[in-house]
Amino acid sequence: MSVATFGEIMLRLKSPEHERLFQSPVFEATFGGSEANVAVALARLGMGARFLSVLPDNQIGRECTRMLRGHGVDVSALKFKKGRIGIYFFENGSNQRPSNVIYDRENSALAKIEAGDIDWKKALEGMEWFHVSGITPAVSRSCADATILAVQTAKAMGNMVSFDLNFRAKLWNYGADAKSVMSEIARYADVLIGNEEDYQKSLGMEGPAPSSGGETDLDGYQTMCERTLRAFPNARLAAVTLRESHSADNNHWSGMLVARGRRFVSRKYPIADIVDRVGAGDSFSAGLIYGLINFKDEQRALEYAVGLSCLKHTISGDFALVEPGEVEKLIGGDVSGRVQR
Amino acid sequence: MSVATFGEIMLRLKSPEHERLFQSPVFEATFGGSEANVAVALARLGMGARFLSVLPDNQIGRECTRMLRGHGVDVSALKFKKGRIGIYFFENGSNQRPSNVIYDRENSALAKIEAGDIDWKKALEGMEWFHVSGITPAVSRSCADATILAVQTAKAMGNMVSFDLNFRAKLWNYGADAKSVMSEIARYADVLIGNEEDYQKSLGMEGPAPSSGGETDLDGYQTMCERTLRAFPNARLAAVTLRESHSADNNHWSGMLVARGRRFVSRKYPIADIVDRVGAGDSFSAGLIYGLINFKDEQRALEYAVGLSCLKHTISGDFALVEPGEVEKLIGGDVSGRVQR
Amino acid sequence: MSVATFGEIMLRLKSPEHERLFQSPVFEATFGGSEANVAVALARLGMGARFLSVLPDNQIGRECTRMLRGHGVDVSALKFKKGRIGIYFFENGSNQRPSNVIYDRENSALAKIEAGDIDWKKALEGMEWFHVSGITPAVSRSCADATILAVQTAKAMGNMVSFDLNFRAKLWNYGADAKSVMSEIARYADVLIGNEEDYQKSLGMEGPAPSSGGETDLDGYQTMCERTLRAFPNARLAAVTLRESHSADNNHWSGMLVARGRRFVSRKYPIADIVDRVGAGDSFSAGLIYGLINFKDEQRALEYAVGLSCLKHTISGDFALVEPGEVEKLIGGDVSGRVQR
Amino acid sequence: MSVATFGEIMLRLKSPEHERLFQSPVFEATFGGSEANVAVALARLGMGARFLSVLPDNQIGRECTRMLRGHGVDVSALKFKKGRIGIYFFENGSNQRPSNVIYDRENSALAKIEAGDIDWKKALEGMEWFHVSGITPAVSRSCADATILAVQTAKAMGNMVSFDLNFRAKLWNYGADAKSVMSEIARYADVLIGNEEDYQKSLGMEGPAPSSGGETDLDGYQTMCERTLRAFPNARLAAVTLRESHSADNNHWSGMLVARGRRFVSRKYPIADIVDRVGAGDSFSAGLIYGLINFKDEQRALEYAVGLSCLKHTISGDFALVEPGEVEKLIGGDVSGRVQR
Amino acid sequence: MSVATFGEIMLRLKSPEHERLFQSPVFEATFGGSEANVAVALARLGMGARFLSVLPDNQIGRECTRMLRGHGVDVSALKFKKGRIGIYFFENGSNQRPSNVIYDRENSALAKIEAGDIDWKKALEGMEWFHVSGITPAVSRSCADATILAVQTAKAMGNMVSFDLNFRAKLWNYGADAKSVMSEIARYADVLIGNEEDYQKSLGMEGPAPSSGGETDLDGYQTMCERTLRAFPNARLAAVTLRESHSADNNHWSGMLVARGRRFVSRKYPIADIVDRVGAGDSFSAGLIYGLINFKDEQRALEYAVGLSCLKHTISGDFALVEPGEVEKLIGGDVSGRVQR
Amino acid sequence: MSVATFGEIMLRLKSPEHERLFQSPVFEATFGGSEANVAVALARLGMGARFLSVLPDNQIGRECTRMLRGHGVDVSALKFKKGRIGIYFFENGSNQRPSNVIYDRENSALAKIEAGDIDWKKALEGMEWFHVSGITPAVSRSCADATILAVQTAKAMGNMVSFDLNFRAKLWNYGADAKSVMSEIARYADVLIGNEEDYQKSLGMEGPAPSSGGETDLDGYQTMCERTLRAFPNARLAAVTLRESHSADNNHWSGMLVARGRRFVSRKYPIADIVDRVGAGDSFSAGLIYGLINFKDEQRALEYAVGLSCLKHTISGDFALVEPGEVEKLIGGDVSGRVQR
Repeated sequence: MSVATFGEIMLRLKSPEHERLFQSPVFEATFGGSEANVAVALARLGMGARFLSVLPDNQIGRECTRMLRGHGVDVSALKFKKGRIGIYFFENGSNQRPSNVIYDRENSALAKIEAGDIDWKKALEGMEWFHVSGITPAVSRSCADATILAVQTAKAMGNMVSFDLNFRAKLWNYGADAKSVMSEIARYADVLIGNEEDYQKSLGMEGPAPSSGGETDLDGYQTMCERTLRAFPNARLAAVTLRESHSADNNHWSGMLVARGRRFVSRKYPIADIVDRVGAGDSFSAGLIYGLINFKDEQRALEYAVGLSCLKHTISGDFALVEPGEVEKLIGGDVSGRVQR
Repeated sequence: MSVATFGEIMLRLKSPEHERLFQSPVFEATFGGSEANVAVALARLGMGARFLSVLPDNQIGRECTRMLRGHGVDVSALKFKKGRIGIYFFENGSNQRPSNVIYDRENSALAKIEAGDIDWKKALEGMEWFHVSGITPAVSRSCADATILAVQTAKAMGNMVSFDLNFRAKLWNYGADAKSVMSEIARYADVLIGNEEDYQKSLGMEGPAPSSGGETDLDGYQTMCERTLRAFPNARLAAVTLRESHSADNNHWSGMLVARGRRFVSRKYPIADIVDRVGAGDSFSAGLIYGLINFKDEQRALEYAVGLSCLKHTISGDFALVEPGEVEKLIGGDVSGRVQR
Repeated sequence: MSVATFGEIMLRLKSPEHERLFQSPVFEATFGGSEANVAVALARLGMGARFLSVLPDNQIGRECTRMLRGHGVDVSALKFKKGRIGIYFFENGSNQRPSNVIYDRENSALAKIEAGDIDWKKALEGMEWFHVSGITPAVSRSCADATILAVQTAKAMGNMVSFDLNFRAKLWNYGADAKSVMSEIARYADVLIGNEEDYQKSLGMEGPAPSSGGETDLDGYQTMCERTLRAFPNARLAAVTLRESHSADNNHWSGMLVARGRRFVSRKYPIADIVDRVGAGDSFSAGLIYGLINFKDEQRALEYAVGLSCLKHTISGDFALVEPGEVEKLIGGDVSGRVQR
Repeated sequence: MSVATFGEIMLRLKSPEHERLFQSPVFEATFGGSEANVAVALARLGMGARFLSVLPDNQIGRECTRMLRGHGVDVSALKFKKGRIGIYFFENGSNQRPSNVIYDRENSALAKIEAGDIDWKKALEGMEWFHVSGITPAVSRSCADATILAVQTAKAMGNMVSFDLNFRAKLWNYGADAKSVMSEIARYADVLIGNEEDYQKSLGMEGPAPSSGGETDLDGYQTMCERTLRAFPNARLAAVTLRESHSADNNHWSGMLVARGRRFVSRKYPIADIVDRVGAGDSFSAGLIYGLINFKDEQRALEYAVGLSCLKHTISGDFALVEPGEVEKLIGGDVSGRVQR
Repeated sequence: MSVATFGEIMLRLKSPEHERLFQSPVFEATFGGSEANVAVALARLGMGARFLSVLPDNQIGRECTRMLRGHGVDVSALKFKKGRIGIYFFENGSNQRPSNVIYDRENSALAKIEAGDIDWKKALEGMEWFHVSGITPAVSRSCADATILAVQTAKAMGNMVSFDLNFRAKLWNYGADAKSVMSEIARYADVLIGNEEDYQKSLGMEGPAPSSGGETDLDGYQTMCERTLRAFPNARLAAVTLRESHSADNNHWSGMLVARGRRFVSRKYPIADIVDRVGAGDSFSAGLIYGLINFKDEQRALEYAVGLSCLKHTISGDFALVEPGEVEKLIGGDVSGRVQR
Repeated sequence: MSVATFGEIMLRLKSPEHERLFQSPVFEATFGGSEANVAVALARLGMGARFLSVLPDNQIGRECTRMLRGHGVDVSALKFKKGRIGIYFFENGSNQRPSNVIYDRENSALAKIEAGDIDWKKALEGMEWFHVSGITPAVSRSCADATILAVQTAKAMGNMVSFDLNFRAKLWNYGADAKSVMSEIARYADVLIGNEEDYQKSLGMEGPAPSSGGETDLDGYQTMCERTLRAFPNARLAAVTLRESHSADNNHWSGMLVARGRRFVSRKYPIADIVDRVGAGDSFSAGLIYGLINFKDEQRALEYAVGLSCLKHTISGDFALVEPGEVEKLIGGDVSGRVQR
């Protein structure tokens, strides 16, 4: 069973360890981006995963492709054009100091995607699942158009469609109305995914009132999800990632999955020494897709999604470099972190 | 409004990460020193900050100057002479293993400062605030003499004077009586700053009896500060940094500020994954100076001092590499460490 | 007083920081192995420590020897032969992701040890204590034979013999019955050391039933140790390391020592930001040997063992790079981790 | 005497040593750009040097400013605006493999400069020399307009104007006719600088026919320069850098300076182990400006220019990190490279 | 047109820069091996390239596979089995100090290859060319058997077969007679490749008498090749790499190709600052295969082989990380190494 | 046969690769010093080598000791006292830019050596050869006194004494007359060693007039040596290192040895890509001592000295990390640098 994702992959430039940008004259240089992260995670877990995007037709675009292919991603449908790769600069926070992202992704090769660049019918051939996030339509108007065309085509071809809302306020600056674009995409989705803010800011679905205590208002989230499922009748499932952020290093992480009339709540993981939390949401999406395809059991699919993304917090870079079997071991209850030898 | 500080800047040689000295054949090589740290922190926050010192007239002294100037520090009054730069070796502790400092600062260019090396009147021209710490007079007798002359001149020129007691027992080995030198300097200070030991060891002011519980004896600290303010009638404010050291990585950090008849206690920050706590006290001083100048509100000034120094714990090196706005955000209550994008 | 240890030293190849293997194209390259770790720890504490092993007669074997000699280990009895050095690959875990060891130690120079390679009488000349772990006999049949000969010779020469059970299931694949080999060795030991599993898997001694609560069943461990002392009448002491593994980064660490009719329980250390826990058990052994030799006080010897191995968790690499005095300071009660200057 | 330069400073991302891009997941991250390089070289030699540019108003722009200020550059006239910093990726060649630059500088903050962004009168206040290169007008049409306005203003204010032709064919893609823009700027220049191709491609001045032998056709270059001086009657001097490129590592480097009726030829340096040749032309310009201002001796000014840029080849990064006295020592004849101690 | 290669890929552990092994506690960790190097070079040049081997079924084998796949190599026919990966340690020489290789490849997963591990018919399906080197049969007797079966199958399936003699005296220690094994393989080859020693030591073909002068005895090499072609009548071409080794850093590099009755001699490249010469012979083979397939012009094929392998000397690691077009540019005559921008 | 050396070992802080000091915030941190370098080279070649010095009684002194012991140096006679370690900063030159050393070695533990610190009789027990260089007496007056006492004692105990003149003008600043001190030491030497300047500046022995051509004036050097042997009748041999410095990277290296009435001239090595030439003279001394002890053949001893020091140029750091057999191979004529495998 194969999954296609569509979005932007960027050059990720990170200062070392917990340093501020330029504190040392060096950057860790890797690649990442929401939908690419999903494809890489799935490929490393052994699934077919095709990544659809437009990359610059230069050495950087080629090396990015090599990296994706190395992880097992199907790069046969990538399009190469004159242009630049989007970039994001990343500074890893610590304790009370938040991590910081500076985007330099305007005018990227993908942002300038044109109508004929991707032949969606061909690109989705042989796929059973299509995934996209709310970042792609926020990149540019032509990306929004492409996203809508993509989900329409996927749906028409009988794919399952998952849509990670992933709201990025700073990106929505090209003039479109975020909610109407996002809602248009959501209409074609079978599975919606988001954190507490995404549902409200992307789709206008109110979440629970902020609780003073710290106790997560699960009922409130369930209500929000059910309201969403009613508003988007094609959607079968709505998932919420639940992050309690005690500090930049110390989060508690869990998730909820809501189907009509049923709610599933996952185990909660305290993650007290976060290595890198970027891409955690993407690995949740990857895990959920993996789980729904392989397990036919919503609770287990959710546990797999939360387990995979829990492990992502322990791995530097955007990608969930996790091997088959590691998530199973974790969600089977082994959280002791004892040395394997 | 501009601030001058006087003291020693050293070459700081640190083994990587948490390694012991020479575990790898490499040192991180930066610069630091109490009063330079204050100047750098203030300059990065946008204030005028002039650093007064004597540096070796060689490539190392010049590179140190370039680094200070880069951070925005006014280096126009630095004096260059034949000699060496002071050095400290630093090994970052972890858990129950303490961090360790080895000083190699004897016979530095500053230690050998001579009477005419700095023309204090000229050096303090245009300044409104002068700051020094108890490390400078501990470096050598001529440093002690220079410090006293400096605070006298600053006071005479109408500067506010802040004095961070910063007691370093190992340095007081050139024959002077620490308490009498420190008291002489303190006589000119408007603001006194220190941790629990500094008041006693520098000025002979008894602090609270050690509590067995762990509950901080705020009243005891207040009493100590008030006693100090009585003993040094020029001083308007006495500040105390309150560190609870649970392990090398895990401290709780807060502060108290005492004016005659009033006491201010800050929010307390649990810092569970300390990156580098060297220079935290200096950034407290910088934050307090910044706050007292800019806010005219003792409580807010104290919160700013504690917030800035809380952030310092998350940054490697001696300097509080903090941008304007970051402290405000923290003391405004955002301690979640969520990714900024 | 001098201690000899016998075993394998391997090349240790670790990916940087918390990275997965090959995430960056680089390995930290050091050396380590249970009995070598004991010898290095003892040598750095100022004791005589001779390491007995077979190393490849090439540049790698020579550099390994240089490293051991640098730490103060007596390398005069090492044997060099054509062959390879054993290797282990190491990936440092984080939070819920366990650390991972991949062994590549088959067919090492030591594994192929032959009868005459080490003249045990000569090798143990001048020694008062001999230490070996259960890893050595698991390496190969000839290693098992050599180990038995070694403990017999040591015993005959009047040495104290300590035996760290160190059970490694994956290594016992050359056809021997682990329990019978281990029991044969244990018959010559004065001191037995192990964690909760080792006693059962190596010697068949049942430990306490797993408690659901988390409260350590000290009585159960005591019973297990006493049963062991009865089964091996030459043994005077049985020690247990008690690790509570909350996550890969966060363990609680303590120990118990049982003599006939008496039990000693150590202070427990919460270690919340583990740097590297490999070799902790070895440093416990080293500390226990050090303590038993130097203190004639079982409680203090145990506290020393637990203190030294607590500090090991804060140091990268296999070796406990601890200086004389550091353990004393810790077990004297200073756990604050405050900067030493 | 103070010099202003106007142009773009970029983030420079270089793969380590001689590696190809992304061979390791890391970039050396520094800053550079033709006119900034001139300013930094002059500032490090002790001259006043002001850099004029537009930088992004974010952390990257601020760190770039800090770096320039550290080197002693006057950053008081920099303009900060919303936008991005230009970037260039750099791969260091070796032997027969050429170095490779990938530009990602479109839509930079400087490229989008607007008419009022720099108040040229104010920006050039207190300056005696203005320098610009042919890269700036190639960045965008508004940059070309700004450059022309800048040289006009500088000339009107009585500045000496130097113009390094620096022809970059790939950049001239926004629709302008390079030769007419370049000629318009050259009309205001007192000193023209270029390599063998620049005169022809920028100004249409034919150089010597390619010699088959390798013997540099000095007469041909002289003729080219004299023809140029006739075409641009305001120009007093025309300089040519003479690079013989035997391989990526091994170049011979010299220069020629032509005044009306006189020609000066420098010593030639064989540079057999080039560390980094990027920025060599810029340091030639800096050295020539330095020499013409300080020596009033064209031969010596030329030797200084060639000497400084010879040393640049030995220094990684864009900047000529050369201390006062080092060039004098070299052009005084000490080329032995013997250790200084 | 697709090429298959069969052989061993090893973990390559190199000390940094020109350091001796363990001078710093770090290794650069990449992968390489003669036939894998050929496959990677061909894949990066855009050809189909399938690598046939046996790899350990663990994380190391999987990461090795990912790396090969990233470069574009077809890994679908790799076999995974319990075992270890071969390793080689590498120390880069300098000047008069030679580079040094320490092999630790005995008992690797490939060395233990069994008859049925690779289904040769299936593995060679869709291939037009099969390449192997003399290293593979030297690894173990079962490797020799597999190699012979492979060339027989390839030949029977109509593949072109190239055989790089690659004589490694130290590896031929499992009891076989090298010459008879090598001759058996050579009987199936269309193209034979080797350096001056390989022909003699592998096949017993005498080369030219050592010349005292330094002038390469091209006639002598031609004679040797023609004698070889007579002895192996299936062979159509015999190639010789001609390395003049002036020092570890400074070699001259060229090649000769001999067909019956015709000889082709390439341009000679002086390579004065070698970055890494390991794998140069393999990239010669890759270039020759590429050239013979694509150009139908022996002279141009030879120039391509020499050009590609010339560039390999400038790239660290085993692989010729060369992009399409770069060799063409070099053999077109551009050896100046000028910066490309 | 065992050799003792006496002198200072310093912390060596080097910027990476060819970077200028502080270009990156990192130093390579190793140890070195003329006489320690001799001891390490001899120990690695398998000889007994004892190093005599005074080191600081802190973690840095202990790690320095560990490093020396690791290389096989006998550290049993080192003295530890309160104080600091001498430091030198090192910047590696390139092409026309010379390498640069900044000393920070005043007031080191060795500089403050006192009369009773080393019991020379005991320290030289079991030694047959004593070596010292002209750096030691230049460090301080007490070092000069100690050096004289040392050579007197060594001579009286029947040791061979070698004296490397090693003139460092900048160090002779404590008031002594260099020539008279040096001459006093030279009176006890059997073997004198120096480069072209050392004989003149240390002992007042004129060398050959500087030749304009570049042809080394061997006769002139011979005359200088013979004059020296006449002036110091105890001396049996005078050696000269002959360095032709074409650039920082490219030197030619050879040597001459003069006995009464005989002169020996070595092979000359072109070293075109120097890695690190610091310590080359020391390794010449080590090689000469090794050769004179082991070969009883002045020509071969000289060739060994020149060969070992030739190899030193290819190794970073102060130490000649050369294995037994490597020099023999080189002086046997293998200068090709071909890969050893």
